[in-house]
Amino acid sequence: MQALPGFRDFYPEDCARRNHIVAIWRGVAKRYGFVEFDGPVLESTDLYRKKNEEGAEILEQLYSFADRGGREVALRPEMTPTLARMVAAREKHYRKPMKWFCVSNFFRHERQQKGRLREFLQFNADIIGESSSQADAETIALAIDLMRAFGFTAENFVVRLSDRKAWMDFLSSRGCDESASRIALACADKLEREPEEKLNAKLASTELTVADLKAFIAGGSPEAFAPVLEALAARGLTGFVQPDLSIVRGLAYYTGVVFEIFDRSKNLRALAGGGRYDGLIKGLSDGSVDLPAIGFGMGDVVLGHLIDETPAAAAQLQSALAASCDAYVIIADESKRTEALHIVQSCRELGLATDFPLKSAKIGKQFQEAEHLGAHHAIVVGQEWPLVKLKHLPTRTEEALDHSALASKLKAYKLNS
Amino acid sequence: MQALPGFRDFYPEDCARRNHIVAIWRGVAKRYGFVEFDGPVLESTDLYRKKNEEGAEILEQLYSFADRGGREVALRPEMTPTLARMVAAREKHYRKPMKWFCVSNFFRHERQQKGRLREFLQFNADIIGESSSQADAETIALAIDLMRAFGFTAENFVVRLSDRKAWMDFLSSRGCDESASRIALACADKLEREPEEKLNAKLASTELTVADLKAFIAGGSPEAFAPVLEALAARGLTGFVQPDLSIVRGLAYYTGVVFEIFDRSKNLRALAGGGRYDGLIKGLSDGSVDLPAIGFGMGDVVLGHLIDETPAAAAQLQSALAASCDAYVIIADESKRTEALHIVQSCRELGLATDFPLKSAKIGKQFQEAEHLGAHHAIVVGQEWPLVKLKHLPTRTEEALDHSALASKLKAYKLNS
Repeated sequence: MQALPGFRDFYPEDCARRNHIVAIWRGVAKRYGFVEFDGPVLESTDLYRKKNEEGAEILEQLYSFADRGGREVALRPEMTPTLARMVAAREKHYRKPMKWFCVSNFFRHERQQKGRLREFLQFNADIIGESSSQADAETIALAIDLMRAFGFTAENFVVRLSDRKAWMDFLSSRGCDESASRIALACADKLEREPEEKLNAKLASTELTVADLKAFIAGGSPEAFAPVLEALAARGLTGFVQPDLSIVRGLAYYTGVVFEIFDRSKNLRALAGGGRYDGLIKGLSDGSVDLPAIGFGMGDVVLGHLIDETPAAAAQLQSALAASCDAYVIIADESKRTEALHIVQSCRELGLATDFPLKSAKIGKQFQEAEHLGAHHAIVVGQEWPLVKLKHLPTRTEEALDHSALASKLKAYKLNS
Repeated sequence: MQALPGFRDFYPEDCARRNHIVAIWRGVAKRYGFVEFDGPVLESTDLYRKKNEEGAEILEQLYSFADRGGREVALRPEMTPTLARMVAAREKHYRKPMKWFCVSNFFRHERQQKGRLREFLQFNADIIGESSSQADAETIALAIDLMRAFGFTAENFVVRLSDRKAWMDFLSSRGCDESASRIALACADKLEREPEEKLNAKLASTELTVADLKAFIAGGSPEAFAPVLEALAARGLTGFVQPDLSIVRGLAYYTGVVFEIFDRSKNLRALAGGGRYDGLIKGLSDGSVDLPAIGFGMGDVVLGHLIDETPAAAAQLQSALAASCDAYVIIADESKRTEALHIVQSCRELGLATDFPLKSAKIGKQFQEAEHLGAHHAIVVGQEWPLVKLKHLPTRTEEALDHSALASKLKAYKLNS
């Protein structure tokens, strides 16, 4: 029996890797003054139908079913609908702007391919209740500093910055109504992936051609990006950002700045993406709550690939994975097991990670186990009781001391190392 | 729109509470030398059918459905089948005993009642590959020290210790075959909840009556518990344990020690439960891997109720929830926003949790926000630049200093406090 295709088993080494990624996400978000929230894994299917247009890819990939009570439910494929639901229900309780993040697992019935799994972890951060470009810059700076915290530099990744409003202004100046704009944006999203004739055919109902879209992208839109770039420059983060109007993001609801993070070598899919969605909370709350918002998501799958491909990030991960055992208690004489258990308990009560053999074993084998666990100290309990031997394994130095002096000595060692 | 019944939204204050519980679970498990693993939220439904007898409650409560590929899948209702699957696939890679834990969410379509939700978090710990009562004691000691780490004492909870083997020996000595034993155990499990006549009717096909079961329970079985109790006494944990043969645990697969943790006032359901299951991994791996095992689970729902009802535990939780903002940067003069952003970035890069206003606001309002966030320091950036004012908010003391000296000063403050 194996895990289902697209789902992962986290053996201890995989789980340590996952926890390292989660710890960095959380640590940086807290430095930025974001607070953590979460929602249920299962939601009413309507929540996703309401946000997404019929036929949207995310609905086609939904794990949805009827529960034992006959409710149409779905495994969450994204966080924004849950966030909007929660915010709409209680926004009056919170000062604005709300800076919220989560680290949650999501589910999409994807075709099997590199960088895509059916259950994945994603960091999401959103600023709700602030429409200024200061909030845009704060969000993008967070995304950049998350990447840097993994050991990536400007040589490894770039934030491609675009603006939906600049796009909408251009499209309306060229006579596109809402439906034509939607077609044009969908084509802009596929410029690198679909042949020009096919796209021109799709654009036939609009006033535009692929050449027009490309000309708009090439022309840039410097004035749209100026305030965000300025606020990023004040933080010293300019080198990580590149204005690039070819980024449009698939989803219909973006209203302003949108961005994606890519590895510089372009070997991988986007590492993160997001943007401003000022009308979405209003739409999802049936008009009862109207708050501007900007947010992004960063998944663990593509990120994991880039860590593996980047020596500095991979080395940082490796050092975080090192086993941590403070003390291994060696029972040199089985008749002293009771005394040994007493020591184990004292060490643990001081917060030391402590292990010992659950059954009688030769001393050599016990030392092997201590080495295997990467223990800093071995404590040998035997006939010399109440004296015990304390051996510092990395240096092989040892001393004999009374057992009552042991735990505090180890604790001091841990605090100083 | 609300969360589905039995599912929880974790607003920031709820999420901080959840994270506090998870951090304690993880911290104590690591002290005990357990390593963390996890599995997928979704598994093949067969995995649960294989472990549980037809009609078992856990199967009746399963969230199961056919996915888009036509596979019968289910949201995990428990961890043991996933653990057994993972261990069977790779046990040769790991030294024995394996001491593994996880903190995962589980799903059961429960009837709505206190202490029961449809999505809940559970800590699980298992020792695999060691059949001795030393492993039993190590597992029970971990359960006790988890409870103590939340601030509970022997006045708040008790581990009720029983033994399936003692039960099976008794039942076979009274002529019960496998089927009769199953009936007798099911009745023993319901002694406190069902009327005597009803139970005697169920027992009719066996040689036993309710009186026989009660006599066995009252007689105790001191020799069965001696080695575990001795190993717990060596750790000073005797006061937390009470031998009690009335605990049988519902599940069919237990083979030795079983235990449950209850609050002393018996107001709540069991806080944790588990036991030895030496044949289960063999059964689930079709005989390919045969390893003895013992484990238990502790959920977050009943635990949360007991924390709320226990002043010491509730106080500990409250202090863990205190907001943590190291510095709030006050922009006294909007023309100095660039300089302020530079300071924000420097503080964050030193690991300080730092916040600031995303839009222009009166100084008084900014100080209010700093107080609201529980900031230790306010940094006032204004016309005096490159001098800034550093204000220690709890003591209201302040000093002016050059901005370049600021970040390291705050860092030193944080390290020393």
